[in-house]
Amino acid sequence: MSLSGTPRSSPSVTVLGLGPMGRALAGAFLAAGVRTTVWNRTPGRDRELLERGATGAATAAEAVAASPLTVVCVVDYDAADAVLRPEGVAAALKGRTVVNLTADTPDRARETADWAAAHGVRYLDGAIMTPTTTIGTGHAVFLHSGPKDLYEEHRPVLAALGGAHTHLGEDTGRAAAYDLALLDVFWTAMAGWTHALALARAEGVSARELAPFAQGIAAILPPLFEETASELDEGRFAGEGNPLTSAVSSMAHIVHAAEAHGIDSGVMRAAEGMARRAVGLGHGADGFIRITDVLAAPLDGPVGTGTAG
Amino acid sequence: MSLSGTPRSSPSVTVLGLGPMGRALAGAFLAAGVRTTVWNRTPGRDRELLERGATGAATAAEAVAASPLTVVCVVDYDAADAVLRPEGVAAALKGRTVVNLTADTPDRARETADWAAAHGVRYLDGAIMTPTTTIGTGHAVFLHSGPKDLYEEHRPVLAALGGAHTHLGEDTGRAAAYDLALLDVFWTAMAGWTHALALARAEGVSARELAPFAQGIAAILPPLFEETASELDEGRFAGEGNPLTSAVSSMAHIVHAAEAHGIDSGVMRAAEGMARRAVGLGHGADGFIRITDVLAAPLDGPVGTGTAG
Repeated sequence: MSLSGTPRSSPSVTVLGLGPMGRALAGAFLAAGVRTTVWNRTPGRDRELLERGATGAATAAEAVAASPLTVVCVVDYDAADAVLRPEGVAAALKGRTVVNLTADTPDRARETADWAAAHGVRYLDGAIMTPTTTIGTGHAVFLHSGPKDLYEEHRPVLAALGGAHTHLGEDTGRAAAYDLALLDVFWTAMAGWTHALALARAEGVSARELAPFAQGIAAILPPLFEETASELDEGRFAGEGNPLTSAVSSMAHIVHAAEAHGIDSGVMRAAEGMARRAVGLGHGADGFIRITDVLAAPLDGPVGTGTAG
Repeated sequence: MSLSGTPRSSPSVTVLGLGPMGRALAGAFLAAGVRTTVWNRTPGRDRELLERGATGAATAAEAVAASPLTVVCVVDYDAADAVLRPEGVAAALKGRTVVNLTADTPDRARETADWAAAHGVRYLDGAIMTPTTTIGTGHAVFLHSGPKDLYEEHRPVLAALGGAHTHLGEDTGRAAAYDLALLDVFWTAMAGWTHALALARAEGVSARELAPFAQGIAAILPPLFEETASELDEGRFAGEGNPLTSAVSSMAHIVHAAEAHGIDSGVMRAAEGMARRAVGLGHGADGFIRITDVLAAPLDGPVGTGTAG
């Protein structure tokens, strides 16, 4: 897709934050022919982008004034606030749109939307679910939340980033909520993988020997995610062949074997403790997904009512 | 494959332990035409198998005497010891082979091999990596360890269980080591999933809304397992676009958001603490897999030497 044309009518975007992800975003806009203005708090990060045709800016205010749409991607919302909220920048943003692709908590996203509304800034929040290398390709995954019409308005320019874009709803915090929940699965799984490799190595099994079998574990997860999601939403917790008591026994073996080799097993100890607590609350015959209810339950309140809605 | 023929020359097997997995194993042997003798400590579990042609036994000793090969699958090695080690059973097993598919630690497997050797019992250890529903199908995955020639001798009968069988080495504990390491990844990932669902629910996102995106997370894992396995074995820890400091920041957001909803976040707290400790040891610019080294390092010793070999 080439978006070349007269400068006045061609789409344009400003990218604030030129870390690895910000540079990937700006690069994808440039590759799609979008006029791109870039700025970073620490100077010197824009050189390659300028060579590729990006416009530099001396200040964040100057950068946001150059485009109707500003995409922000910095380390967290403290950093985003520091970039967006100074008076000059806020004034320059008035009537323009910010798409904040910075990762942080849902509350911070909602609070930023409130700030934007109070300053006449049009605001969408978003999350990038895939690595920098996917940006501009079909493999990128973007989640968005905030006003649907604003999302639709900027969708053509955002499409330059490639991949799949999903608008999750009007609640500004929704993209961050999905992002955190998905990263929760990701980091916890990776924590398990690092521990598994330590245990394997202590038993004389190399990482490369174990890895092919770990593919099989990863393959079990997708159908299990689907299945347990339905179970949870419907309140079906029957353990069938896989009761929590078996999980506890299996987790205890892992802790025992790892600690016998002097391996820190705090993560698995916490997981085992969580499962044991669910068993202690009378859910030993239930499936593993019962734990979701137990995690969210007030200690002196009823278990199994959830907190949604 | 039909293995029918004269009773004397046809393959035969004894299955001790008729929990859900033991019943699946016995059922697969029967379906493949293997003469199958079954026994369970608690009576009454064999009815359906007897209807399908299995032979019942009054005692474990009588059961093991009926076949050259006994497959054991009970809850753990305490249970396996209770079944195999009484004098009458040990005497009946002399000169015969035990394939112990019970899950426990590598040490228990090695100790059982020592016991078997001392009693003239030929011994293989094994692990079943897939659910009961896969047994007898192409989707089953079995790991074996112990004497290679003994494995080769019984492989034709074990093939009746379906799926893929891999002999991992002569060290009897090897199947249990792989098993525990793989279950480590599995249970930790599932712990992350239960927590993610609790966080999502507190944010008004149902499990079924989140599940399709979780498929994407599961899809990221296999190539990452391969890649990080090579990095670890080669001692390459460069974080490139994904330093440990970013992981810590992401994990802290998850803990913060979940605890703000009153959700128990002990597992993610432990994972975050583990990552922070690696950062504190000077590895903040390294990739996540550096944690494997840190987990196994003695607190007052050098980091990065591992414990293998």
